Amino acid sequence: MNKEIIAVDLGGTQLRAARYDAALNQLTREHTLTGADDGLEAVLARIKAIISLVMPSKRDRVEGIGISAPGPLNSKTGVIVSPPNLPGWHDVPLGAIVEEEFGLPVYIGNDANVAALAEASQGAAQGCRHVCYITVSTGIGSGIICDGRLVTGQAGLAAELGHIPLIVEAGQVSSVELEAAGPAIARQARQALAAGENTNLHDLVAGDLERLDARLVGKAAYHGDRLAIDLLAYAGRIIGLSIVTLLHLFNPQIIVIGGGVSKTGELLFAPIRQTVRDHVLDSAFTAGLRIEAAALGDDVALVGAAALAATHGGDLDISELDRRF
Amino acid sequence: MNKEIIAVDLGGTQLRAARYDAALNQLTREHTLTGADDGLEAVLARIKAIISLVMPSKRDRVEGIGISAPGPLNSKTGVIVSPPNLPGWHDVPLGAIVEEEFGLPVYIGNDANVAALAEASQGAAQGCRHVCYITVSTGIGSGIICDGRLVTGQAGLAAELGHIPLIVEAGQVSSVELEAAGPAIARQARQALAAGENTNLHDLVAGDLERLDARLVGKAAYHGDRLAIDLLAYAGRIIGLSIVTLLHLFNPQIIVIGGGVSKTGELLFAPIRQTVRDHVLDSAFTAGLRIEAAALGDDVALVGAAALAATHGGDLDISELDRRF
Repeated sequence: MNKEIIAVDLGGTQLRAARYDAALNQLTREHTLTGADDGLEAVLARIKAIISLVMPSKRDRVEGIGISAPGPLNSKTGVIVSPPNLPGWHDVPLGAIVEEEFGLPVYIGNDANVAALAEASQGAAQGCRHVCYITVSTGIGSGIICDGRLVTGQAGLAAELGHIPLIVEAGQVSSVELEAAGPAIARQARQALAAGENTNLHDLVAGDLERLDARLVGKAAYHGDRLAIDLLAYAGRIIGLSIVTLLHLFNPQIIVIGGGVSKTGELLFAPIRQTVRDHVLDSAFTAGLRIEAAALGDDVALVGAAALAATHGGDLDISELDRRF
Repeated sequence: MNKEIIAVDLGGTQLRAARYDAALNQLTREHTLTGADDGLEAVLARIKAIISLVMPSKRDRVEGIGISAPGPLNSKTGVIVSPPNLPGWHDVPLGAIVEEEFGLPVYIGNDANVAALAEASQGAAQGCRHVCYITVSTGIGSGIICDGRLVTGQAGLAAELGHIPLIVEAGQVSSVELEAAGPAIARQARQALAAGENTNLHDLVAGDLERLDARLVGKAAYHGDRLAIDLLAYAGRIIGLSIVTLLHLFNPQIIVIGGGVSKTGELLFAPIRQTVRDHVLDSAFTAGLRIEAAALGDDVALVGAAALAATHGGDLDISELDRRF
């Protein structure tokens, strides 16, 4: 097999595309700005243009185009539902549009699902067949590989770990994302500051509460600030409980945690691991389990989009990726 | 294909076995008592004996033996870990024992996983490829079929919905089972009675709080008792939240609910459906979704054990079951 694959990473800010060989080695790569504020038609034109830039002169060398896009999206129909960071996008049939333009099969996956495939093929979960990937940044997303196949569900909407419900106190329902994503950490920090708690965050924001984000909380925690450490520990505990849910439902080999907030490292990972130990049903669920940071950097979405196309949108077993080497 | 299958339902009280033809029609059936109190060796002898009773004279007509057993168990190794209702059983290699006795492939699944296969092959979820089965009785168990294949996980421990953690109030962690299974409903009813609440349950138990079980609560609720209705509504709300978790993680077509407590019907199902509507992320997750009572009766474990063997322990796609007709 000497077929090549085109991968596209459609983000709210950055737009990237690359061409991969059959063994998923990157051959060429382009990047530009998405220009989301210019509206739907402008972004569609830029997507077509960047794909053209990485397309080989002989188009029949390409077996398919994989696209990583912000959810929610229906991976079965290739329709982008209504991503918060792409204004004006509502039920856009991106798959059909790109397919018509280039006459090639197009596979679309949400960024977390695509990242799960990337980590399983070239990252922290290489060689694993039971993988849960979690991304913690402005939202919390997840991608799950169950016995070698991506879990997408009947309409391709799976798997939204950030939105599993949690009762946080006396009957009030919240969600993992509302309690533990970056904006939640910042919100809790702002509340603590407004309540006059003793913390170095007062100095770091210099009176401007709007400047307070999860990155600043991570910085303060790194320098030993008690409040900041406690806020990360709370986020870690909530994420840890959601991981216990994943362990009991999927019995995976590895949990891979990526996204900006995960860069706070052990300040987040230690409470995650402690919560998992405290609340798992039986040690059989954690025997041999690894909980690790994501290994791939900026290109995770491109690698994953290529893996998505190589597995026909996640329908094929990930062993398909090894077969190509 | 004219191969037959032996199915065994090992329960805490009842022991059943049956022989099925290739299309999973039942040919012969036996049942007896498990005799769990007589200890491990006695039960093993009874299992071998009841299998012999349904074995055809020509053993080479049989392609495999499927066994439904109480969890926790490792479906990959066929080892029964430590079921609460089988005293003296601890890490029993039941698969290897039966395989050695009869010289046939043996597949073991926990009762909820096996029930999921049964409902997908001959019950409420016939024709569905994305199925979540929940059983609510003395415990809460689940079996999940994801794009046609049973979710078992790396050690065959999946899927334990009853043990996903819930924070019930101000930081205190409980689980779906501890809040909503039969014993939880009975416990909450006893607490309400002890607190002197106004309810017909006082008359139904006639002063003996030990008689109070979920069945009696269901009966009182059926006759309009407010407390009993509220207790079932709380259980329904907790089960509903766990279903929202399943919807967001698996995006299934159908939720099938079985087990003794589910027989309370709409008193449980109405709050379940309301909670799902209230807390699902997006209506895309509930579009076309069915939430239904289990369709199979007493033989669910036998049908499921046969389906387990026919799918080689859930490794094969459930379309294998149709192919046989």
